[in-house]
Parts: sequence; structure tokens; C-alpha cells
Amino acid sequence: MAKATSISMSVIRRLPRYYRFLGDLERKGITRISSAELSDLLGLTASQIRQDLNCFGGFGQQGYGYSVKQLREEIMKILGLDHPSDAILIGAGNMGRALVGQLDFAGRGVRLIAVFDNDPALFGRRIGDYTVRSMDELDEFCKGSSPKMAVVAVPRDNAPEVVDRLLALGIRAFWNFSHYDIPSADTNVIVENVHLGDSLMTLSYRMKAEASSKL
Amino acid sequence: MAKATSISMSVIRRLPRYYRFLGDLERKGITRISSAELSDLLGLTASQIRQDLNCFGGFGQQGYGYSVKQLREEIMKILGLDHPSDAILIGAGNMGRALVGQLDFAGRGVRLIAVFDNDPALFGRRIGDYTVRSMDELDEFCKGSSPKMAVVAVPRDNAPEVVDRLLALGIRAFWNFSHYDIPSADTNVIVENVHLGDSLMTLSYRMKAEASSKL
Repeated sequence: MAKATSISMSVIRRLPRYYRFLGDLERKGITRISSAELSDLLGLTASQIRQDLNCFGGFGQQGYGYSVKQLREEIMKILGLDHPSDAILIGAGNMGRALVGQLDFAGRGVRLIAVFDNDPALFGRRIGDYTVRSMDELDEFCKGSSPKMAVVAVPRDNAPEVVDRLLALGIRAFWNFSHYDIPSADTNVIVENVHLGDSLMTLSYRMKAEASSKL
Repeated sequence: MAKATSISMSVIRRLPRYYRFLGDLERKGITRISSAELSDLLGLTASQIRQDLNCFGGFGQQGYGYSVKQLREEIMKILGLDHPSDAILIGAGNMGRALVGQLDFAGRGVRLIAVFDNDPALFGRRIGDYTVRSMDELDEFCKGSSPKMAVVAVPRDNAPEVVDRLLALGIRAFWNFSHYDIPSADTNVIVENVHLGDSLMTLSYRMKAEASSKL
């Protein structure tokens, strides 16, 4: 993995998409694919794809294309999906429940090990394979299990306090659904903010631009 | 809006972020901001910001910076947020409920007008301001109200059938949480896929790359 730190973030951000599409191909029983076919599928140029994959040593053979299985496995290793990190989920509301119910954490390189909430009505309730714990147990749990990642699915107003507590407990990576911008001036702290509202605004814009181009 | 179609998608995708940060500044009572300050805040170069905003005619005055309120209003108009589009939500499970509960649709240019599900146990239940309707009512509702956008928050296996039905009913824009790739070969159909798993994989990678760079 040490070498991987030199790969640009724009390449890294495309890898999960490659990984996902290659998984679809594997499920369909397709074993080989050319960069031209990958290009059609992904909406990227074939040269872009060759460039991206060359960053990791280039698995393709001229004229033979890529082995779907091998390429997918290499990307899996580059993304570190074979060595999952422990994470905790803070917030067992609708968003937290939707994430636990719909997302294959393990397949994305993350082992979810506990779920916390501050609402006594939820303590002890089951969410998938997890039992909701009280935030009062957070410190002891983190000292025992040392998770390094947290999924923050709490309301915006609660987020600053929750994040401060998690930082003090050694959490260094945040998957953030709270709409509170976690300060990331500290370069040891890694944040992926999920801003669903931005995605909705973009869709709204594209729809109107499309309609007006027809006038 | 007709002119806006010529603006590149990469600029458009940055606008919601500008809009969000300008809203935060307004709430803090800040009235003017320089491109250098915006640059610090957004993590973009000042020249990138000037370039982006020049696409729309350039609202800044040399030496005076931008009026936060005016800039935010202009971006609001460019994104068409002042003319909301009608949308329906398909799927009243955890994800659907999380979206209705946490997202300010109206502030993002979308007027959510109805919620549908195929689970009889949910029919008639309240979600925020909405009453869950049966999918049996979908055709009649769409013929009467003509929504052009749908939020698809159904399981992947149900998605192809749901999407086909929505297309037949005249829906042309999809905000897609189903993990099913909606075919967008038809250029009249606009899709924003939300792939939460991709975001999680990226975080997982960045955390490991960060840790290994310290070895």
C-alpha cells in the first residue's frame, strides 16, 4: 500500500466505479474485456482507462484485453478491501438504519463493529446484526476495541459535540452524513462528506437545462 | 436558462458547494468575501473560483470581493432553485424516510409532491408531511400531476420494473439510490446515481494510504 499514496485522488475516486462495473461483468459471466468495451460501459475514453490502470502496473495485454477477474482482484487489493478497517456507527435513526440495511460494509473494506445512539428508546434495539448501544458506553467501547473510523449519521446540531468526542477517542476517519463540516485542517483526520443536497441540486439544474435546450 | 446549457458539468457540480458555503457565511452575518477567502474555505485556487464565477458574468469587483448575498442569489438562479420541479418519492423504507426527514428538498429546487411504496403495511402512514400511497395509485397520480422527477429509493431487485413504469409515465429525471444502473442511453433521461458504497471505499482507501505513509 505504501506506493499507492502517490496515486492521484482523481484516479482513486474512479477505482470504486471500475470495481463495481467489473463485479457486474463477473456476475454476468464475462471473463475478458477490452479497454474500448470498458470505455463504452463507463463513459470514459479508452486512453483514460489505460492511463488509470497503468498507474498500478498495467494488467492488460495488447490485443487480449483485461481479465475481468484479475483486474477486479487487483483493484480490490489496491483499495485495501481485503484488509477491512473497524468502524462504529453513531446514530441509529433512519439514515443509520438505511446504511446498515442496504450497504455491504464488509465488501467495501469496512467492518462495522458497533452502533450507538443517544436516544434511550433505541437502546437494546436490533438493527440488522447490531444491538444499539448507549452513547454512555462509547468511551469504554473505543478504549477496548480501538476503532479508527466512524460513520456519523446524527443531526447537524449534535455533530460538533459527537465529532469532538470521537476525535478524543482516537477516531481518525469520518464518513459524514451530518451536513456539519468536520474541520479537516488536521492532516491526520480524513473526512468523506456525503452532501446529498448537492447531488439533488445538480439533478434539478440538469433537468431544467435539458428542458430549456429544447425550447 | 438556455445559455446555461453551455456551462461545463464540472463547473455545475461545484456550484452547489459554493451555494452551501455562501449560505453558511450569510447565517454568520458575513456580507462580503474575497476570492482568496473563498479559496481558503473551499479548498480551490482563487483563480479557479474567479474562472468559475466568470462563466456567469462575474459578480466580483476588483478589490471589493463578492457580495455574499448577491453571489448566493445569482447561483440560486443559475441552479434554477427559484423554480422548483415537482418530484415523487418511490420507496418509503429507511432511505426514503431519511431523505424526507433530513433533506430540504424545496431549498434544493425540488418540490416533493407524493410518496409511494408497494408495502400495504405502509399505506396511509405519515412520513413528514406526506401520506404513503400505494403503487396502484401511481399511474393515476402521474397522469393528474405530471411530475417530471422521481427519487428511486427501492431495493435493487425492484428497481428495473419501477424505473420502466416511471419512464412510461413521463418521468425524465431520476435521483437514484437503488444501486441499479438506470440506462441513460436515451439522452432525454437524466440520472444522478448516488453510490454510497463508492464513497465508503474511497474513505477506506484514504485511511489505509494515510496509515501506510507513516510506516
